[in-house]
Amino acid sequence: MPKVNLAQKFRLIKEYWSPKIAGQLNGQYVKLAKFKGEFMWHRHEKEDELFLVTKGSLTIQLRDGDVSLGEGEFFIVPAGIEHRPVAQEEVHALMLEPIATLNTGNVTNKRTLQELEWI
Amino acid sequence: MPKVNLAQKFRLIKEYWSPKIAGQLNGQYVKLAKFKGEFMWHRHEKEDELFLVTKGSLTIQLRDGDVSLGEGEFFIVPAGIEHRPVAQEEVHALMLEPIATLNTGNVTNKRTLQELEWI
Repeated sequence: MPKVNLAQKFRLIKEYWSPKIAGQLNGQYVKLAKFKGEFMWHRHEKEDELFLVTKGSLTIQLRDGDVSLGEGEFFIVPAGIEHRPVAQEEVHALMLEPIATLNTGNVTNKRTLQELEWI
Repeated sequence: MPKVNLAQKFRLIKEYWSPKIAGQLNGQYVKLAKFKGEFMWHRHEKEDELFLVTKGSLTIQLRDGDVSLGEGEFFIVPAGIEHRPVAQEEVHALMLEPIATLNTGNVTNKRTLQELEWI
């Protein structure tokens, strides 16, 4: 696999809430996503999920409080913990999670992506 | 675990080539390290290793060519591939690899860290 330039890859992402795969290692995917607006409450039963913000400000709502992430900050949502990402303005985020992880976790609806594309 | 501010954590790192643990997810550690100078040729038999540069320029020498990483670029060294990180000037890098990974891979010498600290 070649190296990945984050800014270059983000320029190719046109849709919000639609993670693309930018790398794979040790059974995990490195995903890149743009967020804007509110996602849905969900949890991943067995998978921890890392969010690293590379542009903008992301709030990760948890049932017992919010985590606010600025550029250069990351947070790991532990498996089983309900969360809801919210972005007032456009956010660029790098995510890390097991290959099997569905974006909407335990919830299936129109926002659920069954197959992710590489970027 | 609380959120992690990368710049804040890097300010606490005083030594080169001494990764600190900044997060844990799905059997992997997120590590932060400062590099300057030349490391040693080594490989990790079973572990893929991600390097994301957040400051400076890092060259990852491979037996069949070099990969040059600037800020906001990452590269995944596949398991079994010999590599050697080289940094002309100070580099800040986020690394991702399985918990069991030794920093010097298949080589054991004075640079081998048996236990890593959290930061």
